Amino acid sequence: MNLILFQDNDFTGDMLVTLTGRRLQHVLEVHRAKVGDTLRVGQLDGLMGEGRVRTLTADKLELEVKLDQKPPEPLPLTLLLALPRPKMLRRVLQTVTALGVKQIYLLNSYRVEKSFWGSPLLQSEKLQEQLLLGLEQACDTILPQIHLRQRFKPFVEDELPRIAAETSAYVAHPVARNVCPFRSSGPSTLAIGPEGGFIPYEIEKLQECGFAPISLGRRILRVETAVPVLLSRFCAL
Amino acid sequence: MNLILFQDNDFTGDMLVTLTGRRLQHVLEVHRAKVGDTLRVGQLDGLMGEGRVRTLTADKLELEVKLDQKPPEPLPLTLLLALPRPKMLRRVLQTVTALGVKQIYLLNSYRVEKSFWGSPLLQSEKLQEQLLLGLEQACDTILPQIHLRQRFKPFVEDELPRIAAETSAYVAHPVARNVCPFRSSGPSTLAIGPEGGFIPYEIEKLQECGFAPISLGRRILRVETAVPVLLSRFCAL
Repeated sequence: MNLILFQDNDFTGDMLVTLTGRRLQHVLEVHRAKVGDTLRVGQLDGLMGEGRVRTLTADKLELEVKLDQKPPEPLPLTLLLALPRPKMLRRVLQTVTALGVKQIYLLNSYRVEKSFWGSPLLQSEKLQEQLLLGLEQACDTILPQIHLRQRFKPFVEDELPRIAAETSAYVAHPVARNVCPFRSSGPSTLAIGPEGGFIPYEIEKLQECGFAPISLGRRILRVETAVPVLLSRFCAL
Repeated sequence: MNLILFQDNDFTGDMLVTLTGRRLQHVLEVHRAKVGDTLRVGQLDGLMGEGRVRTLTADKLELEVKLDQKPPEPLPLTLLLALPRPKMLRRVLQTVTALGVKQIYLLNSYRVEKSFWGSPLLQSEKLQEQLLLGLEQACDTILPQIHLRQRFKPFVEDELPRIAAETSAYVAHPVARNVCPFRSSGPSTLAIGPEGGFIPYEIEKLQECGFAPISLGRRILRVETAVPVLLSRFCAL
């Protein structure tokens, strides 16, 4: 937690924020802060700045906050990710949030196990927990948006053309002939398949929508490795 | 396990390999192979190819192997990593192995917790387990070498100049003015600090040894995210 994030309803006075629970525990146990210390803070979907500790007890943390810094620039990239297994999804969401992705589509694909769609992790408050961890890690305040798309074909045919319009669109495909480009200028859309990859039909549908298949060479990477590798290659992080 | 790796002592005949334990279980439960099927195989530190299942029981797997493919090219990068906490080390070792790093120095730094050096994970056979998982994932056969260096100063003064000679040498440093370059040509050496970063003294010592401090921008990344992001930026994976 490199940034203490708070929300509108944490305000208990003019520029005064009162925190309990996980954030309080973290400040007590990891920061080991004392009254008068300043901590890096941010308002969810707002500015960042400093918070001076006014009260710190086992029950609550009161911070006088001063907010005068913009959060870092978002990555100009929309991510389409075949729904990974829950344990991996948790890590991938934290990672892509930390890297600055703001639009995430979790989509179905032939090789996505049906049971993954029943995971409690897909409840919006559970998803938000992972996003907050990513923001707290990277010192960012802008919450990414997650869109769940459980039907591949209607999504790709009806919705994706608009999403990918005027972006460089790529789909990671281990057997593609073209190697992933270095540093794409302007906004991009990147589709990453499940373990085992998209099936040929899915690749065709994405190609019809303007996505160029690219590979990362002979090595087969886990999704959680491929994601930061590809984002790093595309974007000026 | 995208590649079934075997070692010299797994040979039980001319081009015949007999496997038990973890690899047998994987072929039974995940590949669900049958007699006559072919599986992708590789000899540790040797060639890759195909293995035809000759026997498959609950006790053993016999494969007739044909080895005629070179493993993928290694990354021309030596990695210096301040020893991460064991749980993270496990993942980072798998990741960097999958990405093709062959020389890994785990070193001490002021912000490395002393207890990490006592972790059972640092026993050579435990380390090798993680490396094998990375090779099996990426389809590679060449085992990386891990060097443990528990004293920062003698390592940097006495050993590192030779390691970093004739390479582009960089140290990841969140507050550095220069941004990480895209695609370094030729061999490179990359130093990555612990959570919280190297301390100024350590950065100075690395600079004296020719390392240029580089940052990835304002976002603070976990080591396990920074590693693939930086490797991807440097190398043509």
